[in-house]
Amino acid sequence: MNINISDENCPLRKTLEIIGGKWTMLIIFQINERTIRYGELKRCIVGISEKMLISQLKFLCDKDIVHKKSFAEIPPKVEYTLTEKGKELLPIIQTIIQYGLKHDI
Amino acid sequence: MNINISDENCPLRKTLEIIGGKWTMLIIFQINERTIRYGELKRCIVGISEKMLISQLKFLCDKDIVHKKSFAEIPPKVEYTLTEKGKELLPIIQTIIQYGLKHDI
Repeated sequence: MNINISDENCPLRKTLEIIGGKWTMLIIFQINERTIRYGELKRCIVGISEKMLISQLKFLCDKDIVHKKSFAEIPPKVEYTLTEKGKELLPIIQTIIQYGLKHDI
Repeated sequence: MNINISDENCPLRKTLEIIGGKWTMLIIFQINERTIRYGELKRCIVGISEKMLISQLKFLCDKDIVHKKSFAEIPPKVEYTLTEKGKELLPIIQTIIQYGLKHDI
């Protein structure tokens, strides 16, 4: 597919607005096939702030990429998984990793 | 491939530091298989500032993703192409576009 002008209708631009944030693909990759609690996810992504992780997870839930399950417990328990739409990003992320490894980035 | 902790050694994180910038993949995609002059490239990426495009092109040249050819002419002529390493990103970018189109992003 070729797109001559990349303006606000460009599908690459629109998709990168969803998944192209600094932390977004790292979050998706770390959730991966797992069901993961918030605290564990935060530990896996070294350097991300609480505020950033919470806002990114909310954004990804709104976009139907991440699913959040809350348990009515004390202390509250929250688990995250990827939706089917989110899991479809994993092979793309793998190709990015393979590219980086191949070129020793 | 599974990476349990995403810290500064994570290959995904390191690769996204190269190609994950807001404009980076758009620039690579617009150069694509073409030999393109600076002015035409800028017109193709609606909204990018001169400063951003120049600094991103310099960065991508330093990373051996983009090749710059300058002609000793008046007015000066500068052309950009993707290197082989840069062209290897095109199939990855295509999968991102296909993902976006499939999910009507």
